[in-house]
Amino acid sequence: MSDGLTMPGSVDDEHESWRFALRHPRGLSRIVVGSGALDEAAPELAEWVAGRTVFVLSTPRVRSLCGARLEGPTREGLAGEGTASGDGLLQAARRLVPLEVEDGEGAKTLAHCERLWRQMVASGGKRDSRLIALGGGTVGDLGGFLAGCFLRGIACVQVPTTLLAQVDASVGGKTGVDIPEGKNTVGLFHHADWVIADTSLLATLDPAELRAGLVESIKMAFLLDPPLLSQIEARFDALLAADSAALAAVVAGSVAVKQAVVERDPEEANERRLLNFGHTLGHAIESALDYQGLRHGEAVGYGLLFALRLAEQRGLERAAATRLRALIRRLELPPLPALDAAALQALMMRDKKAREKGLVWVLPRQLGVGEMVSDLDPGQVDRTLRAFLADPWSESSS
Amino acid sequence: MSDGLTMPGSVDDEHESWRFALRHPRGLSRIVVGSGALDEAAPELAEWVAGRTVFVLSTPRVRSLCGARLEGPTREGLAGEGTASGDGLLQAARRLVPLEVEDGEGAKTLAHCERLWRQMVASGGKRDSRLIALGGGTVGDLGGFLAGCFLRGIACVQVPTTLLAQVDASVGGKTGVDIPEGKNTVGLFHHADWVIADTSLLATLDPAELRAGLVESIKMAFLLDPPLLSQIEARFDALLAADSAALAAVVAGSVAVKQAVVERDPEEANERRLLNFGHTLGHAIESALDYQGLRHGEAVGYGLLFALRLAEQRGLERAAATRLRALIRRLELPPLPALDAAALQALMMRDKKAREKGLVWVLPRQLGVGEMVSDLDPGQVDRTLRAFLADPWSESSS
Repeated sequence: MSDGLTMPGSVDDEHESWRFALRHPRGLSRIVVGSGALDEAAPELAEWVAGRTVFVLSTPRVRSLCGARLEGPTREGLAGEGTASGDGLLQAARRLVPLEVEDGEGAKTLAHCERLWRQMVASGGKRDSRLIALGGGTVGDLGGFLAGCFLRGIACVQVPTTLLAQVDASVGGKTGVDIPEGKNTVGLFHHADWVIADTSLLATLDPAELRAGLVESIKMAFLLDPPLLSQIEARFDALLAADSAALAAVVAGSVAVKQAVVERDPEEANERRLLNFGHTLGHAIESALDYQGLRHGEAVGYGLLFALRLAEQRGLERAAATRLRALIRRLELPPLPALDAAALQALMMRDKKAREKGLVWVLPRQLGVGEMVSDLDPGQVDRTLRAFLADPWSESSS
Repeated sequence: MSDGLTMPGSVDDEHESWRFALRHPRGLSRIVVGSGALDEAAPELAEWVAGRTVFVLSTPRVRSLCGARLEGPTREGLAGEGTASGDGLLQAARRLVPLEVEDGEGAKTLAHCERLWRQMVASGGKRDSRLIALGGGTVGDLGGFLAGCFLRGIACVQVPTTLLAQVDASVGGKTGVDIPEGKNTVGLFHHADWVIADTSLLATLDPAELRAGLVESIKMAFLLDPPLLSQIEARFDALLAADSAALAAVVAGSVAVKQAVVERDPEEANERRLLNFGHTLGHAIESALDYQGLRHGEAVGYGLLFALRLAEQRGLERAAATRLRALIRRLELPPLPALDAAALQALMMRDKKAREKGLVWVLPRQLGVGEMVSDLDPGQVDRTLRAFLADPWSESSS
């Protein structure tokens, strides 16, 4: 979409689709985006599972909403015996073994991992077995980690079922689980063989989930792809109405941005850190709220607003800041709960993005240009944070 | 030593040392082997830790035997406050944070990992912090896993203190922890930035540990480097007497073999599987004994004897088999406890080396030539196993 790195999209009668091939240090991730991407990729997915034990990680809710779409024409197996019939994924695989976790961040614990790894061995998992993560960001993070560490790594496919996971979390190989001291503290880079982002799966999504997911697209667009930002602004109402084609275009645009960054910096040594725009405070807010009350994307939305204030103090043009603030305002995020500035500061210092020498902020210098900033005056950050918490939507940068 | 891949060893007044640079998909592992390797690498290690938080994973026993050697001239810190003084590793690092586990395979659990990851966050660990694994194979496996998954991967150094870890386990990036269903079921490939194999650390080693460690060298030499096998035979008594120079030469020879294999097949898709010679039955024996009673290398020794029988049935020359059997006999392994053939078969099928289509055996076709064999008749394997368990040292291949 944005930089010539996407492969030509194939177009059929019903919908556009986009294909990407993300090169990473250990191989290639193939990404299919579109309304109907699951059907389009079905033959390739069937070949990928052929003759193998395939673990399908999901939650009961997601499985009931999307499980049949994954399995293809035949609707047994995940619900039933795990034996194959018909001509979908089920028939191609030697067997499908469902792995189940609860909805939400609470699923991402080492205790769940140990339970599931034990289940994977007990049900005959081998090094050439495969795993499909069907769900939102938490299922993707957990599934990638389960696959990445099982017998030192088995291949996996990500089938993201939320907008947030489609535009961001499923692409780029980040996996992780939480410990009490921090979210995603334990994890590794383990890229999926395939990412299938089918925007028709988003039709059943809670509208608040759509809004939260859009925050991550807006984040990438503002720092790295201004034309994508214009596209999001122009089709905003269609996006919030879960228009599958509008969503597909924005997902594809976001994936294109992310692919380019990840290929240049696969393990977040440098440029990839730009994608953490809004996440330093965002993660601290989530942590302070114990991952209750605000979605990840919503917390990042507030993180973006705060980062804008820091950026304006360093000279970001008022017009760019106002534009981003207006777009986030249109998302109608839930209000920011009352939070303690000192507690947030302590949480930010513990964030895994911090380095030995302290916090590194990702700030926009101008529209489409970001920078890593490590020399902010802590007193100034503290004053700005206190003013922000008192009135997050203020246009004042102080 | 064996194939031109080693870099020229530097020689000083007191000892020979060898340096290797192992290329892997994510970079380079530097390996220093010699009696005195720790002192030799001290300046480079000091630079590697400079200004950083450095976690040192070890056991109380190993720390008391070798901790001071690691720290250099100053002997505080690991035992004391973690603050630096003097001019060794301690002074270079911002601080050393000791991480402690018990001796033995029991340390390799996810519960220990969670405890240690929590400790690492709580003591200020960041993405640019570093970890040193000081100990035998279990400390190396656990330490590599801790480092590989902490904040999606921090750099680590392996300082192996057993012969087994020096000749094999510390090189090549394998890490792992155990679950009740299997050893090393959970892990990843995470190569150390440096491996420092100082054979002077082996002076305090239990002689039985030396014998067990030699099994892994013999395994590699027989399949991949016959001149190394001759060297082990010729210097056998010096090796068992913990002669540091003799050990250094064999460690360097083994590392050279392993480096070449790992560079050609970093994640054990093909050729690297040859290094599992003797491990299919070996792992099953360990598991059947609940990791008590036999050391890993001792179990692998019996695994080699069994694999020899299968290989002879497929045409391995009697002379080669007799030669390997005689060398293993000289190790005077403890006797093989009574074991149930059916239970071992079930454990082997669960082994992580198994594939969807069944067990793959690593067998020598002739001295210096190994092959992967997946078409053995299960009935024949079973009969051979029963005969082997009744009399493991018999020269008969039936």
